[in-house]
Formats: sequence, C-alpha cells, structure tokens
Amino acid sequence: MIIARTLAEVRQAIQGKGAAGLVPTMGALHEGHISLISASAQECDFTSVTVFVNPTQFGDNSDFDLYPRTEAEDFEKAEKAGAQLVFAPSAAEMYSGTGVSVRAGSAANGLEGASRPGHFDGVVSIVAKLFTLFYPDRAYFGLKDLQQCAVIQQLIDEQLFPIELRLIETLREYSGLALSSRNERLSPTDKAQASKLYHEMMEAASAAAGGQPAGQALNRLNARLETAGFQVEYTAFVDPKTMATTETPHRLSRLAAAVQLGGVRLIDNVPVI
Amino acid sequence: MIIARTLAEVRQAIQGKGAAGLVPTMGALHEGHISLISASAQECDFTSVTVFVNPTQFGDNSDFDLYPRTEAEDFEKAEKAGAQLVFAPSAAEMYSGTGVSVRAGSAANGLEGASRPGHFDGVVSIVAKLFTLFYPDRAYFGLKDLQQCAVIQQLIDEQLFPIELRLIETLREYSGLALSSRNERLSPTDKAQASKLYHEMMEAASAAAGGQPAGQALNRLNARLETAGFQVEYTAFVDPKTMATTETPHRLSRLAAAVQLGGVRLIDNVPVI
Repeated sequence: MIIARTLAEVRQAIQGKGAAGLVPTMGALHEGHISLISASAQECDFTSVTVFVNPTQFGDNSDFDLYPRTEAEDFEKAEKAGAQLVFAPSAAEMYSGTGVSVRAGSAANGLEGASRPGHFDGVVSIVAKLFTLFYPDRAYFGLKDLQQCAVIQQLIDEQLFPIELRLIETLREYSGLALSSRNERLSPTDKAQASKLYHEMMEAASAAAGGQPAGQALNRLNARLETAGFQVEYTAFVDPKTMATTETPHRLSRLAAAVQLGGVRLIDNVPVI
Repeated sequence: MIIARTLAEVRQAIQGKGAAGLVPTMGALHEGHISLISASAQECDFTSVTVFVNPTQFGDNSDFDLYPRTEAEDFEKAEKAGAQLVFAPSAAEMYSGTGVSVRAGSAANGLEGASRPGHFDGVVSIVAKLFTLFYPDRAYFGLKDLQQCAVIQQLIDEQLFPIELRLIETLREYSGLALSSRNERLSPTDKAQASKLYHEMMEAASAAAGGQPAGQALNRLNARLETAGFQVEYTAFVDPKTMATTETPHRLSRLAAAVQLGGVRLIDNVPVI
C-alpha cells in the first residue's frame, strides 16, 4: 500500500489504475469505515482512503482538537481492508489560503446544518477537492451521516462530478449503538445507556410505519429519550434525498436524531419500517 | 465539429481524445475569442468551446437580457478557428437547483468584485462545473478580464484542478480599443471616443514606469478620462496574481480601469512599461 502525503504523490500513484474507489475519512477508523473500504475494494480496481481531520468542518477548535488521531493504526487497518493507497496530507497541502470555498446546497438546511453552522460548507469544500484530485469512479460514504450523504449527492449533481455515490448502511455494536469515533469519549456507563437511542428510535419508526401520526411518535420518542438521560437536540422524519422533514413518513423516509449524553454528541438514523 | 447540448453528449464526445483544451465563453465571439480558440487548437489535440450566457454572474437581469446572442455565427467562427466541439447548453442543463455554489477567493475583492457583487462567485461556480465536466489539460482565458484570470487561477489552485491556465493578451482594434462584446452597444461617436481609454492608460502606466508616483499618475489619468467624457469607476495599479492594489507598481504590475461611456461599461488593463 502506498502512503501519500502530497498532491503530487497522489497524482503519480493513481495514474492508469483502472476503476477507482475513494473512501474519504477523518481517520480513527472503526469497523464502519472498514466496511466502506471493503466495499470499494470489492467493486473497484484501485481503492484510495483519505485520512484528514478537516479543520473547516469543525465549528469550534476544542472539538477539532479532541478528534482522535490514530494514524499508524489507520494505515494498517486500511491496508488490511484492501486499500491500495492512503492519502494523509497536512492542512497546508489541502488549503492554499486563497479563500475559495464551496457552499453546500439545500440538503444542508436544518438538523445538523442548524446545529453546526458552516459544517457542511466545510465538508463539501474538502470533498470537492478530493473528488477533483482523485476523480474516482465511485465514492463511499456511511449512511450514519445521513445528511452528509444528501449534501454530497447534491455536490456531485451540481458540480457535474462523474462519480457514483455508494452509501453503506450503518454498522452497530451488538447493543445497537451505531459505530462512531465519538463513542470512545463515552464512559462505560454512558456507553451502555447510549444503545437505548437506537432502540427507542426503532420503536418510534416502527410506530410511525404502523400508522401512528409522526408528531405523536416524535413526542413520545423525545420524552423517553429525556427520561433515559439524553438531551435531545432534534428528532425528525426526513426525506433522505432532500433532508426535508415530513409529517407523513413512508418506507423511503428515515428517522434522524441528534442527542447529547454525558457531554458527547451522538447522531443516528433508522429506516421507517 | 460536434455541437453538444447536453452533459451526456459532451461526456461521450470528449472521451479518449488526447490533450484537451477548453475555451469557456459567453458567445458573441469576436477576434479576442478567436485568438483563444486558435491558441488551444495549436497546443491541444481536441479543443472545446463553451457558449453559455451564465445567469449567475450577472447582477441584474437587464444586463443579462442585453447580452448579445449570436449562436449560429459563434458556431461557424469556432469551427473556423479550429474547435472540435462546441457546447451550448440550456441553463437547466447547467444548474440542478440544489443551491450548491462556489465562492471566489481573495482575488475577487475590490475592483470588479466591488462594482459587481456576486459576479465572481457566479463565474467560479460555472467555470468549476465546466472544468469538472471537461477536465481539460489547458484552459484559455483572455487577459482583458484581468481579475477574472486571477480568480480562476485561485479556483484551480484551491480546488486542485490539474489544469494549466493559459492567459492570452488582449486584442485591440487599430484605434487601441480593447475588443469586447459590449463595444457593439457604443454609438459610432462613443466608439471613436472609447479608444482614448487605452491611450490615456498607456500614458499613465508609462509615467509610473518612469518614476511618477502611482497616486499622481492615477489622479492625472482620472482627470483626463473625465474630461474626455468617461465616468471613472476605478483606476488602480494591481498585482495581477492577487489583484491587490499597489502604490509602487513595477514591471509585473498592471494598470486596470473600469469606466462608463454613454451608458456602456468598459474595462481594460495594460502592462506597466
């Protein structure tokens, strides 16, 4: 596996390598990321994984500073999962300081976009760079970041990237807790508690699928989550393409939520079935 | 020569065509554009010309509506100059309506950027699309739009486009008037008068090159232009990479100006020699 640090190294390494898969990550790779890399390795001739904690998508420095850095382990895991190249650039390599940036589309409105102003502009700015640099045939993103998936699809559509977006379903611990780099910040007690988020969401989604009015299902969900010790930021039934909230969820809708538990922010989303 | 109207037609036409040159235009092709197309035809295996009056770079609708449309003649001229493909899409083909857009960098500050708010954001948004669609080896722009050249170079640098920007010197009528689609809106009297812009600018640039303080040279220039019937919007010595104004012009600086004459807005720039 090639480890590239500069744009020039990437450009040299990827030339003429056949069908290319790209897995953009911020490192701290867990089984969720591994499933993306494995999917790419199966479907593409040449899989590149990027490891870059992108400063422009963090609202405040403390979250950026706290984000786990585990580069050596990340490289090993990426190689084992089938990657041919890892690109781990410096911030100076990725940002020239011209001030050029990309603005996310309408799918960035509300939910995470409302809770984290500027976050999705930072995401599309860095992802557009990686798309142009790698010009991959397919790009792999995890459905755990549901709104990010919609925002990236709009980036692809609007900026005419000839890239197939492959969305991979969320991996979970046996308890139901969605895999996330942030889970490491939970205390053992909170981690046990955190799994209730998924189960309460599944119950609400199922109730809505069974005919309970959406508002009623969400009110009950919020109350049960607060009782279980979560601070609810939002819960909503959404169209996963537009991220518009809906009062009449159907089988293509998702139930999305953001909560805080013991100072750690958790997001999750589940199908309406 | 291929005439493409859709993204799909472009993608099919440009595949495997060797070194690709791209000449983005808004149509109404004059000899200035022809020189760009000819340069590309000489240097590249496959030259594509785009003809698209981009709505997002116009501040008000009247200027957009007034912009000349001469499609049939444009196609003929492009072919004669050596283009292999012309792409003339509809607005719906180029804009999906997601709201994703690109923000221009620091070179867009001041001068044209100040006179035309949002103009350069519109320019980089459409040019980024064309760059991703054509993914050319070289892109050709005219130095007459000096600030646009700097803004596009920042777009290339920041968004990692592997594109060589080729800047072509301004073509002029025998009178000295810079070729521009907007010249057609000048009355015959105004057109004769308009050529003074270039000569006054050359004199000021030459005075500055000869040691006259920049401020003094600009004051004299502004006074002479106003006397000649121009309304001066700005005159400035600038660094053509950053578009920062400078009090101490040198041989890499340019003198840039925007004026109005008989309701027509004219811009020009000249070297400091």
